[in-house]
Amino acid sequence: MNFDPSIENIRMSPIVSISEEAKKRGPDYFFKTGHKMLLFQRGEIDFPTPQYIIDAASKAMAEGKTKYPKSGGEDEFKDAVIEKLARFNGAYGLTRDNVVCTYGGQEGLELTFKLFEGKKAAGFAPCWSCVLENFIPYADTGFTEVPLQEDFSINFEELEKVIKNVSFFYLNTPQNPTGKLFTIEEVRIIAEMCRKYGAFLVSDEAYETITFDGHKHFSPISLEFDNIISVFTLSKTYSMTGWRVGYAVSRNKRIIELIRLGDYTQTAGVTTFVQYAAAEALSNKTESDRHIHQMNEEFCKRRDALYQGLISIPGVEVRKPDGAFYLFPGFAKLIPEGLNKNEKKLYIYNKLMDNGIASIYGACFGDYFTDHIRLSYSATSIPVITECIERLKGILVQSP
Amino acid sequence: MNFDPSIENIRMSPIVSISEEAKKRGPDYFFKTGHKMLLFQRGEIDFPTPQYIIDAASKAMAEGKTKYPKSGGEDEFKDAVIEKLARFNGAYGLTRDNVVCTYGGQEGLELTFKLFEGKKAAGFAPCWSCVLENFIPYADTGFTEVPLQEDFSINFEELEKVIKNVSFFYLNTPQNPTGKLFTIEEVRIIAEMCRKYGAFLVSDEAYETITFDGHKHFSPISLEFDNIISVFTLSKTYSMTGWRVGYAVSRNKRIIELIRLGDYTQTAGVTTFVQYAAAEALSNKTESDRHIHQMNEEFCKRRDALYQGLISIPGVEVRKPDGAFYLFPGFAKLIPEGLNKNEKKLYIYNKLMDNGIASIYGACFGDYFTDHIRLSYSATSIPVITECIERLKGILVQSP
Repeated sequence: MNFDPSIENIRMSPIVSISEEAKKRGPDYFFKTGHKMLLFQRGEIDFPTPQYIIDAASKAMAEGKTKYPKSGGEDEFKDAVIEKLARFNGAYGLTRDNVVCTYGGQEGLELTFKLFEGKKAAGFAPCWSCVLENFIPYADTGFTEVPLQEDFSINFEELEKVIKNVSFFYLNTPQNPTGKLFTIEEVRIIAEMCRKYGAFLVSDEAYETITFDGHKHFSPISLEFDNIISVFTLSKTYSMTGWRVGYAVSRNKRIIELIRLGDYTQTAGVTTFVQYAAAEALSNKTESDRHIHQMNEEFCKRRDALYQGLISIPGVEVRKPDGAFYLFPGFAKLIPEGLNKNEKKLYIYNKLMDNGIASIYGACFGDYFTDHIRLSYSATSIPVITECIERLKGILVQSP
Repeated sequence: MNFDPSIENIRMSPIVSISEEAKKRGPDYFFKTGHKMLLFQRGEIDFPTPQYIIDAASKAMAEGKTKYPKSGGEDEFKDAVIEKLARFNGAYGLTRDNVVCTYGGQEGLELTFKLFEGKKAAGFAPCWSCVLENFIPYADTGFTEVPLQEDFSINFEELEKVIKNVSFFYLNTPQNPTGKLFTIEEVRIIAEMCRKYGAFLVSDEAYETITFDGHKHFSPISLEFDNIISVFTLSKTYSMTGWRVGYAVSRNKRIIELIRLGDYTQTAGVTTFVQYAAAEALSNKTESDRHIHQMNEEFCKRRDALYQGLISIPGVEVRKPDGAFYLFPGFAKLIPEGLNKNEKKLYIYNKLMDNGIASIYGACFGDYFTDHIRLSYSATSIPVITECIERLKGILVQSP
């Protein structure tokens, strides 16, 4: 029996298999060295979900919010989203018909890709692995990677050539895996370019609240364009990865209606009391601000420690990102010549894994930047980062 | 812009629009008559989720089960399912690789239909409207309705002719909308027929615990066939419609692996603490039995009251179902001649709605049984049923 190729072609993200390998090799590494495996591969967060959100979920269950959800999302959830879009994103004029509740950013993106099934699309490289391994095969998308330049800036000329020929452009800001926060100017130019050529802009804003040094996320949904679909999740902002709740927003109500139909067909809607907890997460401004501030303060310390450590290692090229919780250093100067393509892409990753540091190799994020690795500091304390840098120095610094 | 036709072709179930109409017309009806609109159209349940399950969810949240779920389902959830499949369904020899956690029966069925995208399938008429309006267009299924006979028995000769030519057969037992509980013999013959012709049997067992008069549900998954996919949900059994949790089971591990990949792609998995609550729902035998017994006792009383009332009305044809919480009476003798097809299908439904009874007309369940209506007693107390019968008599009994 041959099953649907769009499902047959899905691959589990290599991040999952890397996490499994790290888990398997951890005890052995500890046995040999007396040291723990350091886990820099994950997008999981070591903050707990704030208590006020858990309390809101318990309250909603006690109040009997355990019946079928309203298709497309509960009014209370949508109203909290609309208020947040105005307050945080500067996006006005949106109503309940512009918002649909989804199972995290994941379902919002999956359904958006599915809307354009079989069509051409593009996005910057490096690109979140789940887009490459899951959404593209599932929606049979013809996907073109537009590489960022070495300093993660945009070659707009190349971008324009590609956007001319696609149904939509996928933008992720702040970006996984680089941590790049696209500037207002960059986002505006991309959005204008999409509009000019009749392409949709699919905007993945999972890390919107995780920004540093006074930089702020700029959401395309604040632009009054009809061709923008912004996808949000509460997973990262509120340490709610396991709750599975997010939302898609567009000024184009037909798109929201289609995502609502898709969501209903796939799942019959998002867990009712989780939507009430999510509404409270967004609308309790005091608690929300406190949590976001506390989390960002810690992430900023970690970013600084990891960045300072990495630039102190000769041959490592690294940029200090303004958002998300990843660094994406390049190791071109430290990879020996004469390796084949496969050896090359795994060289640094293997060296790190052998020395008790789990990371993600660059090839997981597309065809470019294959001599980079992604280090996530979402669940690594400062002492773990210090230990990581020590080990990296031991591995990478050549004896004179 | 033309979007993916598989999404464009989805329709919201007419049950949703009927519910909306009932809600809209309710106040007007009350104003005119001083009586309430009686809601027999819904599949929602008026029992609350049992407290032990809510407590288990709160406990899981407090314990930090708020991080990303394990792809395919938490081990604790799967183990509870495997134990339940043995204890309740008599299905043995199943392991974690035979089970995948899904967002209710909905996602299990949607992903199963999607596995067979673009292929031929069949199922009995009348057929659950969500299959017809959602799964079939979403998976581009070529679907043949095999009508049950007037007494809801099977014409096996006709069935065999159809099963010969399909990739899978959809069976729903106990059945929505008839309440028919397929016998062991019927299920065995259908399963054997599928095996003989190389078709899969997709078994929707949402109402498995809601059976009366000592009758028991027989699950195809207890047969040791590789071509069976059984889809379960906790929605009806534990009054957990809004929790969105269920599971798909097959002895064919490749199928389970593909559903796991599909579920991961669509949603990144089922809400972590909900899975722990669901595990407790299934494995706390004392509380589970108590809840199911109490619910069935009440449903049985309602079925009897509604059935007795309906058979007392001349011209109404009705069978006493052994399961689920629906009656599906026929009104052929009470529909006037000379109506066109559309008037005919809405005649009884409109008469009832005009007199403050919301029901679902038979055409929502496919091309046959269009002179029937579905009455759901999942949320109607005995006094409401008594009132319903009084009104029906007023509407339908001809003055001499």
